[in-house]
Amino acid sequence: MRACLLEKYREFLPLTPETPIITLGEADTPLVRSLRLEKELGIGELYFKLEGCNPTGSFKDRGMVVAVAKALEAGSRALICASTGNTSASAAAYGAHCGLKVFVIVPGGYIALGKLSQAITFGAEVLSIDGNFDKALGMVRALIQKHPITLVNSLNLHRIEGQKTAAFEIIDTLGDAPDYLFIPVGNAGNITAYWRGFVQYQKASKRPRMMGFQAEGAAPIVRGGVVAEPKTIATAIRIGNPASWQGALAARDESSGVIDCVSDEEILTAYKLLASEEGIFGEPASAASLAGVIKMIKGELKLSTARVVCVITGTGLKDPDTALKSAPTLAEFPAQLEAVEEVIVSKL
Amino acid sequence: MRACLLEKYREFLPLTPETPIITLGEADTPLVRSLRLEKELGIGELYFKLEGCNPTGSFKDRGMVVAVAKALEAGSRALICASTGNTSASAAAYGAHCGLKVFVIVPGGYIALGKLSQAITFGAEVLSIDGNFDKALGMVRALIQKHPITLVNSLNLHRIEGQKTAAFEIIDTLGDAPDYLFIPVGNAGNITAYWRGFVQYQKASKRPRMMGFQAEGAAPIVRGGVVAEPKTIATAIRIGNPASWQGALAARDESSGVIDCVSDEEILTAYKLLASEEGIFGEPASAASLAGVIKMIKGELKLSTARVVCVITGTGLKDPDTALKSAPTLAEFPAQLEAVEEVIVSKL
Repeated sequence: MRACLLEKYREFLPLTPETPIITLGEADTPLVRSLRLEKELGIGELYFKLEGCNPTGSFKDRGMVVAVAKALEAGSRALICASTGNTSASAAAYGAHCGLKVFVIVPGGYIALGKLSQAITFGAEVLSIDGNFDKALGMVRALIQKHPITLVNSLNLHRIEGQKTAAFEIIDTLGDAPDYLFIPVGNAGNITAYWRGFVQYQKASKRPRMMGFQAEGAAPIVRGGVVAEPKTIATAIRIGNPASWQGALAARDESSGVIDCVSDEEILTAYKLLASEEGIFGEPASAASLAGVIKMIKGELKLSTARVVCVITGTGLKDPDTALKSAPTLAEFPAQLEAVEEVIVSKL
Repeated sequence: MRACLLEKYREFLPLTPETPIITLGEADTPLVRSLRLEKELGIGELYFKLEGCNPTGSFKDRGMVVAVAKALEAGSRALICASTGNTSASAAAYGAHCGLKVFVIVPGGYIALGKLSQAITFGAEVLSIDGNFDKALGMVRALIQKHPITLVNSLNLHRIEGQKTAAFEIIDTLGDAPDYLFIPVGNAGNITAYWRGFVQYQKASKRPRMMGFQAEGAAPIVRGGVVAEPKTIATAIRIGNPASWQGALAARDESSGVIDCVSDEEILTAYKLLASEEGIFGEPASAASLAGVIKMIKGELKLSTARVVCVITGTGLKDPDTALKSAPTLAEFPAQLEAVEEVIVSKL
């Protein structure tokens, strides 16, 4: 039987007796052991943490449930964020569940409405402004100074507190921390959260080496400077100036880890492998973790006796376009058994 | 900590010591209590079983894990199904995970490739034939007679065995069976499976009344005859001749339940309510359960002291088109705080 995140890990969270306990069924996500890539890549044990099984399809729900519970406790009447993706979906869902208004500010000229389909369906007010993401975020910060509205962008520190519970779950499932944790890095809040989780949870005998991977065209931490125009097909980590930059560096340095980058081609290769070899459909950014594993093995990191966990941050259903881009066109066969049978037998 | 379906409910499943234990993290899905609709509709307790949190985003994974484990046990080398939706996604995922070839036969002229994006990404061979669904299914049945290939359409009886575990979980979570279970009915395998689960699980003191809802344009059980050309926006229940017709009737009659239908308009209204009032984004077919609750209350069924569970069969991310069809166009605001502030304050 499932326990909700706020109750299960209460002692590790910034809750008071007045914090309302809310849940949309977040957390307690599967940790799936690889049946095939583990052998093919020569890894001791390889696991995937399926954060796409959260109610809005990404890891963001872990942090959002804490942020929204605290907003309710503080008497807030609305949530606000500048986001075009997973954060807005999660904010809109928890807002709807709790009867809070939700405002989402998006940069102007934003036409990929598909990414906003969840926020819109959950009834959030989406406002497009004639300006870029920084302008949108600046506006959000000004608004919360004047009105009883809670900011739920990653500047909201409660979010990292909720996200760290994924590390607790990995330890609870494996009985100890893994040797390595591979994780996509965009805004860097998640690697910061996992590291905090591994440090705080006393049930483990060790801590993993934290292996963070940015996309090559959006790799400010690797390059050591802000990237003005980040570019990658992995939209969830298309960030040029991460909010938790320092947290990521600390996770790397304190764990003797690595922050490196992988190309879009490496991400897409890993994305396809993950689906076709393991049956796991993650959003493209998610595949940066497996792409990182493959890159490190090529770079002669020995994992043959290691226990490795890759974080799959969100479901591939968030980005059907990438899935279909690599799809073959469907050949049509006559409705005769022999024609179809011939193809099938040739592939058996 | 999660246990996998095959291990957790082993004693209730058709497994032998030779059946391999496989898992993609299916089952153990959230049962979320309503915070708002329960009060608005005047229901004692209202819960939603979120089957969209399964690894491929629908309840089909529960049955598929059993069907595929049994296929492996039998020495099968491939899976095959005639399906354009959730079944093909689930078959393709479990096949990929276990290294089995997967063939999906779809009716000719099938152009909504989006619904097949998961199956294709998981590496299934999708064959389009010049014929309708019945022709495709007939071909599948002929092929499995001659080759070591396992049929995983709902004719595969192991699937219902796996699906019944959702009823076990509801009883485990609530401590007893609910008074009513509202569930969408398409091929009718799921209502058959839930009823079997409620009957077999001895931990409950009672059994629920089974309330199945078809879409008005695809309601063969309600009308008492095959519907040649079923029509509804709820594609997952667009079925004119359900495979488990008799199972649905038995569930209804043995539980003093109801099988009725709801219009597409009622489904869409419930779909939007579910998202905007509860923060739950189900595929349109899923909303037939809540639409059924609303219809029955209007018809003067008294639920004010009842415990009611609605099954949300799959995630809304499976069908982004429906979500966006009802989306407003985005108005663009100047990047001036006052303009945005005015809108926000007016909506607070």
